[in-house]
Amino acid sequence: MPVTFDRQATARRQHDAAFAHVRSLSVALVAPLSDADATAQSMDDASPAKWHLAHTTWFFETFVLRDHVSGYRPFDPAFAYLFNSYYEAEGARHARPQRGLLTRPSLADVLAYRAHVDAAMQSAMPYLPETALALVTLGLHHEQQHQELLLTDILHLFAQNPLAPAMWAAPAAMPAPMPGPMDWITGREGVVDLGHHGNGFAFDCEGPAHKVILTPHALASRPVTNGEWQDFMADGGYADPRHWLSDGWAWVQAQGVAAPLYWRREDGGWSRFGHDGRRPVNPAAPVTHISLYEADAYASWANGRLPTEAEWESAAQGLDPNGGTQLDEARCPRPRACEQRGGLAQMFGDVWEWTGSAYRPYPGFRAAEGAVGEYNGKFMSGQFVLKGGSCATPRGHMRASYRNFFYPHQRWQFTGLRLARDI
Amino acid sequence: MPVTFDRQATARRQHDAAFAHVRSLSVALVAPLSDADATAQSMDDASPAKWHLAHTTWFFETFVLRDHVSGYRPFDPAFAYLFNSYYEAEGARHARPQRGLLTRPSLADVLAYRAHVDAAMQSAMPYLPETALALVTLGLHHEQQHQELLLTDILHLFAQNPLAPAMWAAPAAMPAPMPGPMDWITGREGVVDLGHHGNGFAFDCEGPAHKVILTPHALASRPVTNGEWQDFMADGGYADPRHWLSDGWAWVQAQGVAAPLYWRREDGGWSRFGHDGRRPVNPAAPVTHISLYEADAYASWANGRLPTEAEWESAAQGLDPNGGTQLDEARCPRPRACEQRGGLAQMFGDVWEWTGSAYRPYPGFRAAEGAVGEYNGKFMSGQFVLKGGSCATPRGHMRASYRNFFYPHQRWQFTGLRLARDI
Amino acid sequence: MPVTFDRQATARRQHDAAFAHVRSLSVALVAPLSDADATAQSMDDASPAKWHLAHTTWFFETFVLRDHVSGYRPFDPAFAYLFNSYYEAEGARHARPQRGLLTRPSLADVLAYRAHVDAAMQSAMPYLPETALALVTLGLHHEQQHQELLLTDILHLFAQNPLAPAMWAAPAAMPAPMPGPMDWITGREGVVDLGHHGNGFAFDCEGPAHKVILTPHALASRPVTNGEWQDFMADGGYADPRHWLSDGWAWVQAQGVAAPLYWRREDGGWSRFGHDGRRPVNPAAPVTHISLYEADAYASWANGRLPTEAEWESAAQGLDPNGGTQLDEARCPRPRACEQRGGLAQMFGDVWEWTGSAYRPYPGFRAAEGAVGEYNGKFMSGQFVLKGGSCATPRGHMRASYRNFFYPHQRWQFTGLRLARDI
Amino acid sequence: MPVTFDRQATARRQHDAAFAHVRSLSVALVAPLSDADATAQSMDDASPAKWHLAHTTWFFETFVLRDHVSGYRPFDPAFAYLFNSYYEAEGARHARPQRGLLTRPSLADVLAYRAHVDAAMQSAMPYLPETALALVTLGLHHEQQHQELLLTDILHLFAQNPLAPAMWAAPAAMPAPMPGPMDWITGREGVVDLGHHGNGFAFDCEGPAHKVILTPHALASRPVTNGEWQDFMADGGYADPRHWLSDGWAWVQAQGVAAPLYWRREDGGWSRFGHDGRRPVNPAAPVTHISLYEADAYASWANGRLPTEAEWESAAQGLDPNGGTQLDEARCPRPRACEQRGGLAQMFGDVWEWTGSAYRPYPGFRAAEGAVGEYNGKFMSGQFVLKGGSCATPRGHMRASYRNFFYPHQRWQFTGLRLARDI
Repeated sequence: MPVTFDRQATARRQHDAAFAHVRSLSVALVAPLSDADATAQSMDDASPAKWHLAHTTWFFETFVLRDHVSGYRPFDPAFAYLFNSYYEAEGARHARPQRGLLTRPSLADVLAYRAHVDAAMQSAMPYLPETALALVTLGLHHEQQHQELLLTDILHLFAQNPLAPAMWAAPAAMPAPMPGPMDWITGREGVVDLGHHGNGFAFDCEGPAHKVILTPHALASRPVTNGEWQDFMADGGYADPRHWLSDGWAWVQAQGVAAPLYWRREDGGWSRFGHDGRRPVNPAAPVTHISLYEADAYASWANGRLPTEAEWESAAQGLDPNGGTQLDEARCPRPRACEQRGGLAQMFGDVWEWTGSAYRPYPGFRAAEGAVGEYNGKFMSGQFVLKGGSCATPRGHMRASYRNFFYPHQRWQFTGLRLARDI
Repeated sequence: MPVTFDRQATARRQHDAAFAHVRSLSVALVAPLSDADATAQSMDDASPAKWHLAHTTWFFETFVLRDHVSGYRPFDPAFAYLFNSYYEAEGARHARPQRGLLTRPSLADVLAYRAHVDAAMQSAMPYLPETALALVTLGLHHEQQHQELLLTDILHLFAQNPLAPAMWAAPAAMPAPMPGPMDWITGREGVVDLGHHGNGFAFDCEGPAHKVILTPHALASRPVTNGEWQDFMADGGYADPRHWLSDGWAWVQAQGVAAPLYWRREDGGWSRFGHDGRRPVNPAAPVTHISLYEADAYASWANGRLPTEAEWESAAQGLDPNGGTQLDEARCPRPRACEQRGGLAQMFGDVWEWTGSAYRPYPGFRAAEGAVGEYNGKFMSGQFVLKGGSCATPRGHMRASYRNFFYPHQRWQFTGLRLARDI
Repeated sequence: MPVTFDRQATARRQHDAAFAHVRSLSVALVAPLSDADATAQSMDDASPAKWHLAHTTWFFETFVLRDHVSGYRPFDPAFAYLFNSYYEAEGARHARPQRGLLTRPSLADVLAYRAHVDAAMQSAMPYLPETALALVTLGLHHEQQHQELLLTDILHLFAQNPLAPAMWAAPAAMPAPMPGPMDWITGREGVVDLGHHGNGFAFDCEGPAHKVILTPHALASRPVTNGEWQDFMADGGYADPRHWLSDGWAWVQAQGVAAPLYWRREDGGWSRFGHDGRRPVNPAAPVTHISLYEADAYASWANGRLPTEAEWESAAQGLDPNGGTQLDEARCPRPRACEQRGGLAQMFGDVWEWTGSAYRPYPGFRAAEGAVGEYNGKFMSGQFVLKGGSCATPRGHMRASYRNFFYPHQRWQFTGLRLARDI
Repeated sequence: MPVTFDRQATARRQHDAAFAHVRSLSVALVAPLSDADATAQSMDDASPAKWHLAHTTWFFETFVLRDHVSGYRPFDPAFAYLFNSYYEAEGARHARPQRGLLTRPSLADVLAYRAHVDAAMQSAMPYLPETALALVTLGLHHEQQHQELLLTDILHLFAQNPLAPAMWAAPAAMPAPMPGPMDWITGREGVVDLGHHGNGFAFDCEGPAHKVILTPHALASRPVTNGEWQDFMADGGYADPRHWLSDGWAWVQAQGVAAPLYWRREDGGWSRFGHDGRRPVNPAAPVTHISLYEADAYASWANGRLPTEAEWESAAQGLDPNGGTQLDEARCPRPRACEQRGGLAQMFGDVWEWTGSAYRPYPGFRAAEGAVGEYNGKFMSGQFVLKGGSCATPRGHMRASYRNFFYPHQRWQFTGLRLARDI
């Protein structure tokens, strides 16, 4: 059963339960990691696991305990400098590409920091005003986002290691027959509702709710599979500029890209690297670790296109956002194989689906007030929207209106695609 | 009177006139330039004037003469390699950042190339099939785009020269009282039409025509002026991260940006560099040479926002796209000062207006077939739409549906902004 | 008493003792380090402590055990790829800038690797042929070099941490009166001997012994002190291009260099960072962590010059290379304050002294045969010679003929200078 | 007959003749160039031809006319900023990589500048004091250096042009039989003299004269030929790291170097690009346009080594420095084919010969006083010495003691090598 921690509809007891659940999952995720594993940073886009643990804790310490609990003393005054991510209003901070050089504090120190803040939070929560409780809720959603980043960042780190260490054993074998050809599912046409409605939690960028017009279109019944992606590769998809956006073609050539991230050609075929180590590519599973450029090129090659955010969201509004393959506990995240089930399958979970929509504000968007207002709005240039969550997204975190966003070249998340077409 | 060269509504004679007009304007634009001026390239984004002259000629030689006139012999077979811009379907080509090293062919050689192709075109045009005439029309619009780039590229080059050479004498003095405060003009609300309608020429990316929903909003009656921009600067606008998109703030800091491009602080105040050399900043004129990042930060500082493309286009649909300050002949392009006139002023001409809309395809968009299909669609990532044309846009080139696009950091075009707000 | 492990003059028992001594010092050096400390890499020029421990072990495993002990099984076949430094003859290897991403094997694993190899070595040594014993001796000198690098690399890492962690407590206070003005000590003139003579161990680049001619000159009686360096700074030394080599001036401007590495201006004056954390600069101590560019600029400012390698070596030939402040055990390396003692002081130990001599081969130089021949000769371009060892050089490692070498911009070693002048 | 303009041994009339000769050669060299050819800059290391013409003129205008001729008015006060190369004492200057953007002043303007300064110089020379005449002599040698750079810089520019323009027609065919195997010529041993002796002009870095000791060695009777270089290539010389300096190997891999600069593999074999355009490689001619790294790798492959500067200079002291293939007039510079003639051939002219000596000061070196003292000393780090001049060196400019210097990766000069070996 998914965790819910809706601020207005839930009693404080539920708040406590959600806090305990989310906070303990973060700690469980790092159980397989050594101090060194939790410290290293494999690229500027990624952060150390230890940093994720500390930064999410700094969020509660700063915006809840410091601002709303009189007499609270910070665990270590130096941590604000080390563990602020990008909140300009909170002052100077350690340069992001240097996070991997912070061998001190140790992982153990950071876990102690977490315990200290958790204890203070649990004492304080019964007495927090509504505005502070709203920040607790925000902090928990924020931490869920970092749980997914922690998983994808550590995967990127381990992928650089020639020893190919596995973080967890592979899930039990899932015998998967190849799915049949995908179906085309006709979407809504005309005026539809977009954005967050109702009382539950949502990030500021999911609103305001508004109406958009959809033209006639259909969505694929399931994501593109690894097997289909191999057809694209075999057909020279990575070498034919006609399929590619201009920026994408420049990227493919400059980086020498010829397969999804973490794929490698072995004697016996293609392998991929995951939290369970290096394994053969499963042709029935959804393709993942692809950039927007690759997704767009595939869609062009397949005579389709990417869905718009509005098309995707409208189609997803009736589906259970807590269904599908999402993260329930500290174990190997892995998309499940595609099946033919009738209707739209695997919209939530498995892989984030690139849309063709730029990440820009909705009409009437206003960022939240204060430092936490730096959360979403300032990233609204150059990025594309992804929808639906992945196998590494904590269950309970997802909504049809949820807007994830990355730059078009980034692909270390569990990113995939679903085709769309005009009809 | 603006040039029009609408393919379907115009007889072949008009076609001939349009061809002669556009082709001769390009040559007139380079009259003040030396061979060296026309050869140098001041940054990767810019091209030499000579290259613009040759590339636009290569377009006609390749897509019209080579493909539709049997027996045509290219002026020089090596030119295809030198003067293809980015058409992958047309084969390998000279690396863009190296264009400034092509001291041969000379400017005189390129003018001879133009004369050769023009003569062949004029002979051929009476006999061209409709499909080829459509390419002629496309080629003329293409050349008009390059006329504007030629002007902004040469301006960038001259701006690097400590001697600050002027390309043309300044236009006659335009005594301009400071405009009063701008007004807010309420825009349309609800379902409106967007994109190109009717029979006239339009680029593929301007269609298909479709409907969008506008929420209540107002547009400023005129662009932001240099004087208002100086208020933003005086208020510390360039130093306060709260106003800036995250990518924009990184750009400001990495590049040390503290004023529009070509501005310099002198003893007596701010000066700017233009085709008439270095001159004092005119506080009544629209601000120009700003990036999307700067435009967005200004709007944030001013408690407004950028208009969406749909808001701008809907408001512009009733206005004369050939009005205002646009390029009529080879003389100094300069935006005129802002006046208060009631209603929306200076929507067309003067300065390109940044919108808050990413440059992405309209519903149902299909790129044109063949090599010329590489024209617009492949640039649909990472760029923002600008509307309305500038003082350097050839008159006759503009439409309400016209979609210009640049990356958010680019500012060597005549780029400015008009505020919008929700109401 | 310094360790000696001269190959030809020493019985096998002494060999065993030297092996045990050197190998155990490496392990002792990392005792204060966590797994994460030992894993991180703070710049491309540096390597993780763990990597130094493993690489020096790989040297013995490969060139002694693999090549000379039949039936030896490598501890882990994957380690050859991970821990080869630059021996092209030994095949492909992990990219140097990526060493800090090897969170596995852990520090504990590497210590187990060391124990495994040490045990095999101790069993094998009684039976090794002379050629293999020579490689053991080479391996021990090689490991001593890495001990110094380990210390300077970890210092660079800790210096990036805003928490400024100390690796060891400071040595007991050394009250040091300011030394008086340095004296000028006249050097030998005419034909002198240079390079390694005699039977003891030396690296290939120290020979062949040969003769050079010295012109009349004098050397300073002691190194330049921090106090004197502050005079240079106060006189604008870092801002006056007349003192600097052209490459040095470009480096100063590009990097914004204005003080030795690890110096920082605090309210109460200048501090420096060392293995004992951040401490006030001691004006009596020799300046250290300076580049050749800085050393050369200082010498120019002081109307002197750097000594040539030949001048320095000739002057040092009569002095005890095992005297002075060198590394005896795992404790904080720190140069001692300068004293006036008559004659040349502190030639060995304390700080490496930049010479004005490029690192190039001696007449008749031939690199050693085989993979170990890639040891010195291939680095003979672009680097300058340093002489005398430092407080971080293991005692017993130094000789007058010893040639250390670094690029002129590098300064993370304990580098200083001694003035010379023509007379 | 070579030009000589020795300051102390020559009457003022000879001074005038030398001035006229050198100054007119520069102008003759640019006769084949267009304004654009003379303006473009193809890499940071190179300068535009126009800039060379102006900079050498600025030298006379500044250090002679401004400083020694009262009442002299500079041609254009802005030119000091544009045409100072690197004299820090002369103030700020235009950034070197931006020289190619100076389309104004035009080539014609610069020629007018030259005429103006030449006239002022010719009027002033009869009355100049000795110190100023010394600067005139220095300025003429300085201009000869720039004549060679002008030729190599324009060659680099033309080499970037796919049209492969020739600057001059090829010299008349020189039927050249393949030279026989080179001989080994034994060099002097023991104490020899090095550096400039006597009264003639020399740059400051050629002195003081001093003695060095040579060990037994031999020099090859002639430079390495293109044919021999092709043997090195055929033997995998560019792909075998054992031959290469470490920095050289990194350079080869990063740049993908597999042949001398300007070589290209064609269907019919290798071609090279020169001032006479693209032509087949002549196997009998000396190899040229190679870096120190390549020269060193070749020597290693051939079981030899590079000569030291002292070995080369000592061997050259008895030879005529004005003999051989050097630049006499404005025509295509091209090394002549190698012949077997007995003794040392082609020591002067044809190609600069890389030595294994770093460019460092001689004992007792003092830079000249004043701004012209920034001439040589400040470049004494990271570069290697080349000797003997090339086919592009103006005849009369060379001496056995002449020290040319470049970084080890640079190869756009006419650089070659002669083998040496220990005996």
